[in-house]
Amino acid sequence: MKQVVIYDSTLRDGAQAQGISYTVEDKLKIVDRLDRLGVSYIEAGNPGSNPKDLEFFERAKKINYKNARLIAFGSTRKININVEDDANVSSLLAAGTSAVAIFGKSWDFQVTDILKTTLEENLNMIYDTIKFFTGRGIEVVYDAEHFFDGYAANPEYAVKTLKAAADAGASSLCLCDTKGGFLPMDIYDVTEKMVKLFDIPIGIHCHNDNGMAVACSVVAVQAGATQIQGTINGLGERCGNANLCSIIPTLQLMMGYSCIPEASMVELTATARAFSEIANVIFNERSPFVGKTAFAHKAGMHADAMHKNTSAYELVNPETVGNERIFLMSEVAGRSAILNIINKVEPSITRNSPETKLILSKLKEMEYEGYQYEGAECSFELIVRKILGKYRSFFELGEFKVIVNEPTSNVVNSTAMIKIKVDDQEEITAAEGDGPVNALDNAMRKALVRFYPRINEMKLTDFKVRVLDSTSATAAKVRVLIESTDGEEFWTTIGVSTDIIEASWKALVDSIEYKLSK
Amino acid sequence: MKQVVIYDSTLRDGAQAQGISYTVEDKLKIVDRLDRLGVSYIEAGNPGSNPKDLEFFERAKKINYKNARLIAFGSTRKININVEDDANVSSLLAAGTSAVAIFGKSWDFQVTDILKTTLEENLNMIYDTIKFFTGRGIEVVYDAEHFFDGYAANPEYAVKTLKAAADAGASSLCLCDTKGGFLPMDIYDVTEKMVKLFDIPIGIHCHNDNGMAVACSVVAVQAGATQIQGTINGLGERCGNANLCSIIPTLQLMMGYSCIPEASMVELTATARAFSEIANVIFNERSPFVGKTAFAHKAGMHADAMHKNTSAYELVNPETVGNERIFLMSEVAGRSAILNIINKVEPSITRNSPETKLILSKLKEMEYEGYQYEGAECSFELIVRKILGKYRSFFELGEFKVIVNEPTSNVVNSTAMIKIKVDDQEEITAAEGDGPVNALDNAMRKALVRFYPRINEMKLTDFKVRVLDSTSATAAKVRVLIESTDGEEFWTTIGVSTDIIEASWKALVDSIEYKLSK
Repeated sequence: MKQVVIYDSTLRDGAQAQGISYTVEDKLKIVDRLDRLGVSYIEAGNPGSNPKDLEFFERAKKINYKNARLIAFGSTRKININVEDDANVSSLLAAGTSAVAIFGKSWDFQVTDILKTTLEENLNMIYDTIKFFTGRGIEVVYDAEHFFDGYAANPEYAVKTLKAAADAGASSLCLCDTKGGFLPMDIYDVTEKMVKLFDIPIGIHCHNDNGMAVACSVVAVQAGATQIQGTINGLGERCGNANLCSIIPTLQLMMGYSCIPEASMVELTATARAFSEIANVIFNERSPFVGKTAFAHKAGMHADAMHKNTSAYELVNPETVGNERIFLMSEVAGRSAILNIINKVEPSITRNSPETKLILSKLKEMEYEGYQYEGAECSFELIVRKILGKYRSFFELGEFKVIVNEPTSNVVNSTAMIKIKVDDQEEITAAEGDGPVNALDNAMRKALVRFYPRINEMKLTDFKVRVLDSTSATAAKVRVLIESTDGEEFWTTIGVSTDIIEASWKALVDSIEYKLSK
Repeated sequence: MKQVVIYDSTLRDGAQAQGISYTVEDKLKIVDRLDRLGVSYIEAGNPGSNPKDLEFFERAKKINYKNARLIAFGSTRKININVEDDANVSSLLAAGTSAVAIFGKSWDFQVTDILKTTLEENLNMIYDTIKFFTGRGIEVVYDAEHFFDGYAANPEYAVKTLKAAADAGASSLCLCDTKGGFLPMDIYDVTEKMVKLFDIPIGIHCHNDNGMAVACSVVAVQAGATQIQGTINGLGERCGNANLCSIIPTLQLMMGYSCIPEASMVELTATARAFSEIANVIFNERSPFVGKTAFAHKAGMHADAMHKNTSAYELVNPETVGNERIFLMSEVAGRSAILNIINKVEPSITRNSPETKLILSKLKEMEYEGYQYEGAECSFELIVRKILGKYRSFFELGEFKVIVNEPTSNVVNSTAMIKIKVDDQEEITAAEGDGPVNALDNAMRKALVRFYPRINEMKLTDFKVRVLDSTSATAAKVRVLIESTDGEEFWTTIGVSTDIIEASWKALVDSIEYKLSK
């Protein structure tokens, strides 16, 4: 089977998307998931332009990766200096990765009018910088910025820039459509020529400014390119980069190429959603392959045909990418999806049991309220327990009161008072905290620990807030997700309310009940 | 100039998108805007499958359109009956449009396995139905469903179905990639063959299941197709149809075709947004040409280059499609990006003024704290004012206290007390709200309105929360973004704190100060 190398740039070009700002923790989580998905290269940052990235590389290089190699990204050296004296090049080396990506200019206009140097000096910049790394045993992927524009304007010079990179020992040459405006046929022609001209692998890096990044990337592979650069969900500068979540299934499931380990293809949908959560951007539910509507059939005629033969209106079996088929406005929706959780609580229940129908309709009601249990299966499991009569309440809330004061001379500005009841015993206590949710969290634990010392085993590890219907402004509904751990297991719970304190409270209670019911 | 006919199906195929349900009023609004935009055909409904559509056509046919012709859409007659006795065909005629679209089967497998009839009867169904309309002087566009699948499976039969349509007098033959899985090169080859085979116009209708609908449509035009079917924003069944908002500028502004009147191209961005509003779906801000980020530049190097020459990172001038260029404020952004805002406050400051350096370092410091000013330029402008000594404080906070009670018999569970000072006058007041932020928002406005009645002109329109460093759980830092409007202008402000109440407070204060300083 023909191999295509997947080169992910979610953390570098993807981080240049509007509204994206990753913490070091975010980046480590993303790298871990990309490695599990099985991409070959992870371009994880530009230490020269972003000093925070050095901290990330420091931590990332201590981790062993199963599939991926980490790449630090940077520019060719500045004009008219020695490469050893270039600060960016030094930062790149300091990142300590075994491979780097170097980008340079291919377009004569960019060299003379933007860089303001000679065409000759640009070739030297490319050569010197790559040689600096290859001479130290570091692999170099060369990114030819604006290559297609450059080739259109001055093909002879554009090829010279690639040649300088190849001569300096680059391991592959990636052709970039940096403005994202070329058409598939042009990409095909130029890529095919470069594949014939060079005996090292040719890569493709497309932007989506004309909406064709996915098509152009795949067409380049047809022309002989063997490396695709893109990002999960197509996030990136302006209209984004080529969306790997569309490209990978197209190449691997429809065209017979191999991109990622066969077993990880089912992770694709979950990965796409998780990345959207980490980046805190709205997930495009209409995305090919991984969106909720990708296999959603609405027209009655389509749905009928689908029951006769799924190949009528589907490209691939949705399960192969970890997604599912939905018939909109239909009872069939969702049943298989929730049966896993139901059977965890009660193995005897089947697809057609009356309880399944009851739980399904409760699920729909809760989703209408703004709950979303993907990623918060523990809260859903508690609902299933309640409906099946397998739920035990561990405590009852008497009342709580949270007070926030501003300004305050204290570091913490919030106080919470709480009264709870366990069996017949009441407990009333109070705690301070950094913000109202933290104060309430502290007070609740303090009240409960007397009855359930096991609470000390657990701690919260993640807290997320998403405003639903944000046009209602400060009166909008919010969804709070809390992740907890007791060292053995991680679990996530959810709460929804127009009041963030109440939403957090619901998620906290679910988290504690899940721990105590284990 | 070569002409391409734009055939919009937002109201038919677009209405099959998940979550879409148009009222008759919605449809009339959409038809009006499409006509103003200057598309040639508007496929506005399927009166056979949706009886509500008849009411729409009744009202729509009384209107005079400047540019567009209205099309009612329907299937070929049912098997083994006379076309005159077919209920769907009668509904289609009853719609009273001067042109109709008839769709029929091209794929032998669909005929024998889904329709369950003979290949011969399918040809008769196509011929009879089209002849029924052309015989009455009604124009017929023939939609060849699954044409590319059909051609791949049995090219001879697929061509016969087109021939039946042409023989019956169809005015054009539209080739559909109904499953949305074909690649640009295949679309090119097959389309080119059909263009050579028939002497009536060939159209293209692509779906986006592999993310290539835009590319495939444009490639078909390169192969000789002269009609493109698509929808505004690409809405449609599953992953949607070809997005006309990407196709029209590509063909008309970059490839030299004529699609819509030159003067209406500037309406494109507003039209795309208006359709999203009417459909009540989230607008994809990363859309080519019409999205808010389509011309947004973040990387410092890109922004610098853009100031030198806009063709470096832009396909077209954003103004040509009614959009605008944005330089995002961020730590990766260089000096040029922030100079726009500085010069709004003080035009005499240049790139190399000491103030620019001061402001840049303040920006980096704030970003380190978790602030992020892209999209919250107003908060940044207030910082610039403070540094340049051009800031005026409108009020002073004495104190506030917010109390949250649970459980409560009331709908609202939060109360806020606030004390402020304007010049020498003090005001103390309180308000309730749905959650603590809403209560504080209400109390602050109540306190300030006595001094600044203009506050009544503004309202909050959006509220976003992002938890930074979410692993600190309930003690994590949060970033709050608030969007406000006074009917004339929209502005966004930001606040960061470990306490969500304090973060919201900061963003609220900035929003009010921005309004009052206007």
